[in-house]
Amino acid sequence: MSNSFRPSGRAPDALRPVVISRHFTKHAEGSVLIEFGDTRVICTASIEDKVPGFLKGKGQGWMTAEYGMLPRSTHSRMDREAAKGKQSGRTQEIQRLIGRSLRSAFDLEAFGERTLHIDCDVIQADGGTRTASITGAMVAAYDAFSKLVERELILRVPLRHFVAAISVGVYQSHPVLDLDYPEDSQCDTDMNVVMTEHGHFVEVQGTAEGEAFDRMTMNTLLNLAHDGITDLIALQKEVLGLQVS
Amino acid sequence: MSNSFRPSGRAPDALRPVVISRHFTKHAEGSVLIEFGDTRVICTASIEDKVPGFLKGKGQGWMTAEYGMLPRSTHSRMDREAAKGKQSGRTQEIQRLIGRSLRSAFDLEAFGERTLHIDCDVIQADGGTRTASITGAMVAAYDAFSKLVERELILRVPLRHFVAAISVGVYQSHPVLDLDYPEDSQCDTDMNVVMTEHGHFVEVQGTAEGEAFDRMTMNTLLNLAHDGITDLIALQKEVLGLQVS
Amino acid sequence: MSNSFRPSGRAPDALRPVVISRHFTKHAEGSVLIEFGDTRVICTASIEDKVPGFLKGKGQGWMTAEYGMLPRSTHSRMDREAAKGKQSGRTQEIQRLIGRSLRSAFDLEAFGERTLHIDCDVIQADGGTRTASITGAMVAAYDAFSKLVERELILRVPLRHFVAAISVGVYQSHPVLDLDYPEDSQCDTDMNVVMTEHGHFVEVQGTAEGEAFDRMTMNTLLNLAHDGITDLIALQKEVLGLQVS
Amino acid sequence: MSNSFRPSGRAPDALRPVVISRHFTKHAEGSVLIEFGDTRVICTASIEDKVPGFLKGKGQGWMTAEYGMLPRSTHSRMDREAAKGKQSGRTQEIQRLIGRSLRSAFDLEAFGERTLHIDCDVIQADGGTRTASITGAMVAAYDAFSKLVERELILRVPLRHFVAAISVGVYQSHPVLDLDYPEDSQCDTDMNVVMTEHGHFVEVQGTAEGEAFDRMTMNTLLNLAHDGITDLIALQKEVLGLQVS
Amino acid sequence: MSNSFRPSGRAPDALRPVVISRHFTKHAEGSVLIEFGDTRVICTASIEDKVPGFLKGKGQGWMTAEYGMLPRSTHSRMDREAAKGKQSGRTQEIQRLIGRSLRSAFDLEAFGERTLHIDCDVIQADGGTRTASITGAMVAAYDAFSKLVERELILRVPLRHFVAAISVGVYQSHPVLDLDYPEDSQCDTDMNVVMTEHGHFVEVQGTAEGEAFDRMTMNTLLNLAHDGITDLIALQKEVLGLQVS
Amino acid sequence: MSNSFRPSGRAPDALRPVVISRHFTKHAEGSVLIEFGDTRVICTASIEDKVPGFLKGKGQGWMTAEYGMLPRSTHSRMDREAAKGKQSGRTQEIQRLIGRSLRSAFDLEAFGERTLHIDCDVIQADGGTRTASITGAMVAAYDAFSKLVERELILRVPLRHFVAAISVGVYQSHPVLDLDYPEDSQCDTDMNVVMTEHGHFVEVQGTAEGEAFDRMTMNTLLNLAHDGITDLIALQKEVLGLQVS
Repeated sequence: MSNSFRPSGRAPDALRPVVISRHFTKHAEGSVLIEFGDTRVICTASIEDKVPGFLKGKGQGWMTAEYGMLPRSTHSRMDREAAKGKQSGRTQEIQRLIGRSLRSAFDLEAFGERTLHIDCDVIQADGGTRTASITGAMVAAYDAFSKLVERELILRVPLRHFVAAISVGVYQSHPVLDLDYPEDSQCDTDMNVVMTEHGHFVEVQGTAEGEAFDRMTMNTLLNLAHDGITDLIALQKEVLGLQVS
Repeated sequence: MSNSFRPSGRAPDALRPVVISRHFTKHAEGSVLIEFGDTRVICTASIEDKVPGFLKGKGQGWMTAEYGMLPRSTHSRMDREAAKGKQSGRTQEIQRLIGRSLRSAFDLEAFGERTLHIDCDVIQADGGTRTASITGAMVAAYDAFSKLVERELILRVPLRHFVAAISVGVYQSHPVLDLDYPEDSQCDTDMNVVMTEHGHFVEVQGTAEGEAFDRMTMNTLLNLAHDGITDLIALQKEVLGLQVS
Repeated sequence: MSNSFRPSGRAPDALRPVVISRHFTKHAEGSVLIEFGDTRVICTASIEDKVPGFLKGKGQGWMTAEYGMLPRSTHSRMDREAAKGKQSGRTQEIQRLIGRSLRSAFDLEAFGERTLHIDCDVIQADGGTRTASITGAMVAAYDAFSKLVERELILRVPLRHFVAAISVGVYQSHPVLDLDYPEDSQCDTDMNVVMTEHGHFVEVQGTAEGEAFDRMTMNTLLNLAHDGITDLIALQKEVLGLQVS
Repeated sequence: MSNSFRPSGRAPDALRPVVISRHFTKHAEGSVLIEFGDTRVICTASIEDKVPGFLKGKGQGWMTAEYGMLPRSTHSRMDREAAKGKQSGRTQEIQRLIGRSLRSAFDLEAFGERTLHIDCDVIQADGGTRTASITGAMVAAYDAFSKLVERELILRVPLRHFVAAISVGVYQSHPVLDLDYPEDSQCDTDMNVVMTEHGHFVEVQGTAEGEAFDRMTMNTLLNLAHDGITDLIALQKEVLGLQVS
Repeated sequence: MSNSFRPSGRAPDALRPVVISRHFTKHAEGSVLIEFGDTRVICTASIEDKVPGFLKGKGQGWMTAEYGMLPRSTHSRMDREAAKGKQSGRTQEIQRLIGRSLRSAFDLEAFGERTLHIDCDVIQADGGTRTASITGAMVAAYDAFSKLVERELILRVPLRHFVAAISVGVYQSHPVLDLDYPEDSQCDTDMNVVMTEHGHFVEVQGTAEGEAFDRMTMNTLLNLAHDGITDLIALQKEVLGLQVS
Repeated sequence: MSNSFRPSGRAPDALRPVVISRHFTKHAEGSVLIEFGDTRVICTASIEDKVPGFLKGKGQGWMTAEYGMLPRSTHSRMDREAAKGKQSGRTQEIQRLIGRSLRSAFDLEAFGERTLHIDCDVIQADGGTRTASITGAMVAAYDAFSKLVERELILRVPLRHFVAAISVGVYQSHPVLDLDYPEDSQCDTDMNVVMTEHGHFVEVQGTAEGEAFDRMTMNTLLNLAHDGITDLIALQKEVLGLQVS
């Protein structure tokens, strides 16, 4: 592995070490610290007993997500969005992606008129913050719903299927899994994939930052993502103490 | 065709009638009205003789895009973003997509320290405003660069390849091309594809709004998109008076 | 006329060619494209079934207006107000003017607790965008109220009187009607007049941009405006298929 | 006079008592408290030794104005604009009017690359705050320019002509001068007039809040305004110790 | 006193001349102009017949404060916060301090579901604007509550105790009372003290701008503040016509 | 200790367990996780090679601080300030306090034209976040300056004196040290004290939230703070490997 072309020495199809720590902070109904190598994100899930205006009285729930980076989570310090008075387009794009991904994982009609707020806050960034966020938020959300079961407010966790996410890309002409920052900042193609435990896609977002990519490359990348996400979902279930299918 | 399952009666692989009208307004260096059926977008390209701060002195150019919808371009009136004092996440996501797509089409190092501003303003919306925007902006940008050639500021249009975009999706369990609003608002999967004239992908953004989608479906959708975009690029070249390859 | 001192060759008391196209977009209850020469404005009227808080329960309606310019409607590209996060003082002044003018034209107590939203969006600017906006919005509003009559929600269009607007000014020491951009940018006095079909004033806003103006000049300008607006109102009625009084 | 139809008992052509107090605060180069009856406005003129970007290097000066109301200057407390985070359309309209009026009064090319900032802050409002602001700001600006003369930075006050402003309107069918709040809130027509010492108009802004007005009424109102402003300019000169022409 | 080290020639323990003028403006329920030497602040108290959301239905009242400075209240002109679109951190800190101080002076449960809005607007600044604001607002609030008594809406002014405020500091190594601007801008330690008529502290905010200060200094400063505030409270009662205890 | 009146069972003069973990994140020049019991704050210090405009060319450095709370660091989820588009008054007050405290600890003239940005982000809140922030930021700043020494950019850490901060208050009529959330939310008096290693005060901010407090109480509180801060500074030095004086 030491003669890998990847800066980290990883094999092309190797994830970084992934660690998911539950109950990371004490107030949130679900709170997870997820690490994809040096990328560390705190994902919390908070339950609120009401829904946004457009859903009032419809008897269903809602899930929404917000995303942020600590100013010095990155190589050089970024301006604080709260101080600038607005969230960047990138931030909004990511939090919309997290929200859609999590809403696909749960049955919104099975937990009453409640909102589950997902907060993903990046403590340290080294590539893949949005995929780590989705993967960690899945566990935090599961824990939060388990709290509602414990409190006997719902009968069971309203799970449709587990989801997890990973990035794939073309780095130095090779398809690779789980790009870290040195790879991400120089790759030609970058694709973020969100997939269910059944191998179905929830989101596929591929961008050619350099050369446009062909169908063959796309297929290889999707294969890599499929295997990586399968491993991540197994890990999610393991840390939750669920039987891995 | 009248027994189609599509509300418009179109075949699954049929584009709506597409019309590209150049020189739509008089001040912009490039100005195009593009129509995808009832979706109508004004795309202008404006040249400014300077670049953003992060590129100053590097001898290269930049392209950036903004997107907006007239308040009553939609079925019910939307709030005006200028009055609300901020652009929605959706708006920012779309204008980032347009910008990346157009930057891939031209050689940023071949037109000096200039910025090309793309503005895509939706006059009437009926689904597919972002793909119409990209497809129209390609022509507007080509015209704007032609102005620089005419003025003898650059030798030739700094074209890398033509790009166009189309949406595909799964509507009533069938893969279809170029979703209009009645389809878009009820489809399970929605995918926006940006492709070059050589059949390579610049962007693939697939979202499962209902059921997650499998690889087979994804392949069918990409095939549909490939053919649709091929037709759109032929049309772009035709309206520009270029030889269709 | 070719030896006119006006850049356009027009006689001092000549309007530019005025075209009013109804049903310009399909979603709005009223939608008009109005052209004063090269100035082109889309005016839409949208009906909402509620009134602002200060009118709730009073049994009367409200009309309000917003105004915007596409970034490249002008000679050099302007910043997009939605991106800057605020509307300029000029924009707010114009939309307040449009709103007051339209509210004077209709009987606010005769169409129930509804709000009519006027949107005037400038596609191409060549002077006189606010007067074109008012003149076009009058027709769009009439169409929107006609929709309420068609739907049998009100008995008749709650018209008090037609209004239209035109600019007059002193260009190269001569009073002239309907200033285009080359004139507007160099004139000494600029006056915008909103008048009813009965020759009464709704708004008179005269500004000496260079030399202050005397009473004699003011009277000449008001005469020019009177005749121009009389013609505009005849055209409004004609395109609406009403008998010109 | 006690049988006047005006709530204040004034004759139709009577100004309220007007008091102009110079040197009201100590830091500003020009500082005036102006009172039109119960309307009290602090007008300051501040000199800054630079001009806005668009004038840099052109060798001329600039004048600009801002306007504000203390939250409880009015009958019921208004929200503080600084707390709301934006200035209303009304505020912006007024400060643009004050700025244009003052720029017409002085020769912008005769005081170097300096900006004169006018601030008009309403301490107590009882109608006519914008006309009091213009009238008071004229004196404050004159004082500020006199400071530059004292400091031997310019040879003389760069005066083109004195300007002052007054409102006129139709109250209970009668044309009246200098509307106070009880009149202003119920009048049919409201016109603000800014005029030079030579009787020429700088601004005429007439609005029919109720019935539209005819030419005859307009002429009567302008006559009233002419006489009122003539008196105000005489007072401005008197408090400045200048010979009244 | 002329050989004092203080720029003003004052003794170390001397207040500047303090003047409190009631009924300064006519609309507010309480309106006071307070002067601490050249520092002049308009303090108004406005009564609104409702409480913020978090207190609705609890049967108690609320008091809140806002603070502002006229742009040219200071030596060089500051930007207007309403134009910048936000209040500075300093402004927010001061208005929170004023609000807490005033809420401690009155019994919030004794005047029903009403809000008393305090507005402190600095007309001229020469140091000590926040302490003058608190001291003046106390009188304005008392007057406003007296209005409620007059209108027979409450039985008596819901006073807990009088409060007033003063600054103390270390200037040229000497503890001094009531710093003016020349002292404030060069002092080592600056402390603002809010105290009740019974000699108890409501707020003590000491900041070492240069050298940190020791306990001895702190005690001396608190002694100075105690005596100064005692005098201010005597004056508050005197201008209100109350018996000085 | 089990029969303490404090909810935590602590003695009145007992700190919570304090843990300071250096090198918590990898990008920042200084990065500390500080824990005061359940309160956990990430404090980073980032060096930038330029100073704000007002210091340019003066040859000195600057230190500034920002503060934030993760939305679910608190009992119930707070709105994200970046999403609301502005920082609260409380946030601004705290970050100003942290900035002043840190600036007093270092010699701004001894590290060139550089800015040290302090970021304090609360991961979990249980009272005392601002005092934990200051105490942790001191260590992060020390580490950051040590980096400059290592890189041979300055000769030694430009330390003036160590500072740390603690809260004290009156809870159930007893003076106590280091209030946790259950105490803080119900105490009568809350005082935040910032002190140097020499026992001198940098900031004393005492607020009577309920009953005003007398001099005796104040002295007791300052004694408690003195002892607590002395312990904190010993810990700071210990974790930095410095000799405790």
